[in-house]
Amino acid sequence: MSEVFDRFRKYLKEIESYDTVINLLHFDLQTAMPKKGFRMNCEATTKFSTERFKLQTSDELCGMLEELKKEEEFSKLDGDWQFIVDWMKRELDEKKRIPLDFYESFVKTVSEGCVAWEEAKKASDFSIFAPCLKKLIEMAKQEALYRYPDKDPYDVMLNTYEEGMNSEIIDGLFSEIKERLVPLIRKITKASKPDDSKFQRLYDLDGQRKTQKLLLDYIGFNWEKGGVAESEHPFTTNIGSILDVRVTNHFREKDAIDPMFSAIHEGGHAIFEQNTDEKLAGTVGASCERLGLHESQSRFYENILGRNKNFWIPVYDKIQKYENEFSDVSLDEFYREINKVEPSMIRTSADELTYCLHIIIRYEVEKAIFRDGVQVEELPALWNSKMQEYLGITPSNDAEGILQDMHWSDASFGYFPTYLLGNVYDGMIYEQMTKELGDIDTILAEGRILEITHWLNEKIHKYGNTRTSAQILEEVCHRTVSAGPILDYYEYKYRKLYGVD
Amino acid sequence: MSEVFDRFRKYLKEIESYDTVINLLHFDLQTAMPKKGFRMNCEATTKFSTERFKLQTSDELCGMLEELKKEEEFSKLDGDWQFIVDWMKRELDEKKRIPLDFYESFVKTVSEGCVAWEEAKKASDFSIFAPCLKKLIEMAKQEALYRYPDKDPYDVMLNTYEEGMNSEIIDGLFSEIKERLVPLIRKITKASKPDDSKFQRLYDLDGQRKTQKLLLDYIGFNWEKGGVAESEHPFTTNIGSILDVRVTNHFREKDAIDPMFSAIHEGGHAIFEQNTDEKLAGTVGASCERLGLHESQSRFYENILGRNKNFWIPVYDKIQKYENEFSDVSLDEFYREINKVEPSMIRTSADELTYCLHIIIRYEVEKAIFRDGVQVEELPALWNSKMQEYLGITPSNDAEGILQDMHWSDASFGYFPTYLLGNVYDGMIYEQMTKELGDIDTILAEGRILEITHWLNEKIHKYGNTRTSAQILEEVCHRTVSAGPILDYYEYKYRKLYGVD
Repeated sequence: MSEVFDRFRKYLKEIESYDTVINLLHFDLQTAMPKKGFRMNCEATTKFSTERFKLQTSDELCGMLEELKKEEEFSKLDGDWQFIVDWMKRELDEKKRIPLDFYESFVKTVSEGCVAWEEAKKASDFSIFAPCLKKLIEMAKQEALYRYPDKDPYDVMLNTYEEGMNSEIIDGLFSEIKERLVPLIRKITKASKPDDSKFQRLYDLDGQRKTQKLLLDYIGFNWEKGGVAESEHPFTTNIGSILDVRVTNHFREKDAIDPMFSAIHEGGHAIFEQNTDEKLAGTVGASCERLGLHESQSRFYENILGRNKNFWIPVYDKIQKYENEFSDVSLDEFYREINKVEPSMIRTSADELTYCLHIIIRYEVEKAIFRDGVQVEELPALWNSKMQEYLGITPSNDAEGILQDMHWSDASFGYFPTYLLGNVYDGMIYEQMTKELGDIDTILAEGRILEITHWLNEKIHKYGNTRTSAQILEEVCHRTVSAGPILDYYEYKYRKLYGVD
Repeated sequence: MSEVFDRFRKYLKEIESYDTVINLLHFDLQTAMPKKGFRMNCEATTKFSTERFKLQTSDELCGMLEELKKEEEFSKLDGDWQFIVDWMKRELDEKKRIPLDFYESFVKTVSEGCVAWEEAKKASDFSIFAPCLKKLIEMAKQEALYRYPDKDPYDVMLNTYEEGMNSEIIDGLFSEIKERLVPLIRKITKASKPDDSKFQRLYDLDGQRKTQKLLLDYIGFNWEKGGVAESEHPFTTNIGSILDVRVTNHFREKDAIDPMFSAIHEGGHAIFEQNTDEKLAGTVGASCERLGLHESQSRFYENILGRNKNFWIPVYDKIQKYENEFSDVSLDEFYREINKVEPSMIRTSADELTYCLHIIIRYEVEKAIFRDGVQVEELPALWNSKMQEYLGITPSNDAEGILQDMHWSDASFGYFPTYLLGNVYDGMIYEQMTKELGDIDTILAEGRILEITHWLNEKIHKYGNTRTSAQILEEVCHRTVSAGPILDYYEYKYRKLYGVD
């Protein structure tokens, strides 16, 4: 290998060490850190994040990347390394166009945003967050313009989280979803529902923990490359590289079902990372940054597999042993409960169907902000009217309305659509998987779920970040992105379940 | 405050951020890291430790410290800051006398030492570790000579872990201990022992975890400044500063008593740090580096308090609820079991009395190495003969003999004596505490243990690292270090327990 390539690889190791400690600080903050550890955690995070930013935008790196991009060097690299060099060069160019003082003040505004949002949510008063949100919107727009002066800022944002996406494509997908889901949900809401009173009880926490371990084992979580911890909100993160992927969960006495699905969801994210080609570890080619694709994997496990009755057949009796609160709950009753459809205010606890509309509302509000110039003050009313229009309910206050999610407080505009894109991709993946592996119900019922995991490993996971979602779907499903399959799946499943036409 | 003092404080913040991530990496390695996370953890630890070493020995720091030590600046500092400046200057001077290439090769030899020791212990074959140990001994001696060319190397090592200590003082203390303990243990070994067969059962792990939490609460652990985790071997570490102190424990089905005492022991370490004056946080004045004193606090809780029957009176019924395996164990039976004296091979599971002799053996072996030039090859035989002489038993192999501890594999020569010094200090502290607070048995039986914690906070903990053990003992107990009190305590307690004279 050439001298510059050697130097480049050493440089990547440096960056990896920063990733390791920054991710570990974040993981610790959410899982183990006591209250008074906050200051040290923040100060270390700020320090090492700034150092990493400098490393990622340094003249030294720029020089190496320019050398490596010269035909003579570039042609010696394999496809993965070419991807890595291209990605880092593009990222460096983008970041370099952002003035350092703007970057620093944006970081500061985001911290203030998080604090203001928390306060506003606690008081259920949007006006506390509004001035900060206004600033965040302006700065996010400005940042997008720095990065791509000639592009539409909201498309730049969408593209940040899902390369190749823009609002034209999303508009098409989401309007089809609305058209078919809004009437379906309306019918279901009117249909009769099974009695769920027996689920209103207290569940032992240790049993819930055992079930989480069982479920992770079952779907193929690799304990040599990962671990579990507890946090307020479940999440997945790697510590430095895809060789160490942590999932978290939350356990509460009042609800034993929610943590099962968090375990499966986060387990899906982790399985993606753990099965990415190890030779990509420690580079930007590894951990997938196409968030729609990442979300498609967690949701495939959570919804397509986890909300299928057959998924539970091989493990339900073990779960009843760990959590004997389920001993008088038949598998059929359990199945009905985990597929209960009911319009509700909070996205994160929504069912499989209404969840989609929660995302569409957020997307449309973001478009109203960045495209139609709707003023911040008008947003709560806009939110509420859309809730009424799509879900037939209206939030009674800001906390259960526009303030419920933290994502805008850290300026993650354009991020929400990736959740629903994940569902859309899942429909396509499910359709293709059935063609290749045969009936998924049978595979699940027979306890052969790892065949599904291996199929996903081979078709998707091993490529990590080196393919866009569109490329993966084209290669795997031989078609462009379409909402048809997931909608067919929803209609088939829920019409049957609720006896509606 | 002067400009140089401001700069100095900012510089300390930098160092604190390195401490934060280095300690967090270590904590994670021991508690949560999966197998494949090892490489990233090691690389990050090496990188940031090296960076910290550079910060601690930089010309920039040296310049600041020299300025601060000038009469005009120094006189403006309060006592704590004077301590901090002095300590850092001395440390910097010491470290600067070590050539950088020697330092790096020593660090490398230590890593090799740990690997070789692990392998040797697994194979129970000292010859695998011997070549490495020889090198470690030579390098440790050389390092001590670099730091203090005119001093005896072994005294330099002893002084590293307990400032002011040397082998002359330790010889005096330890020979008195041997003189009085060896015959006492011999008598106890011959005395009749209570039946302990009812403790040979399996204990629920979750009950053990609940008991740990109960015990930590009971002795005064501060959850705002700390947390718990699980690891192979229990330990205490702070994450960046005394404001965030983590204790770990290990839970096994076969033994529910050992983790109770680990909880109390590590809790004692944590309470020391958590109650150090917060204004020292983030400086070398905070976390106590006088390891004999630190150990005296963990052992005071573990032994003086924890092995006292009255300690358990206020909590024993709760423990029986958490761990109903103890429901048929009376408090008296429990008390006898936790004070069972029996010569055994392994230090870490030894009882309160024989533990002392385990330490003396290690100290005498170290002296044989550094003072008498005994060859590495002769050490296993020397170890075994001392075990026979003091405890009346001989290890049947190297793993349960000279290879049992990891401390020599990382060149921590001179460290072992701090364990026994901790016990010695405890005798003095217990005597004085009784004079000031009254009968400790009564305080414990009445559930007023926090009065003891507060006394220790005030007398010892708040000073952190800013006093030597000798200074603390002089101030608190108004006398120089003496083994008399702890030996009186041992003899009184165990003669009564075992009915020997």
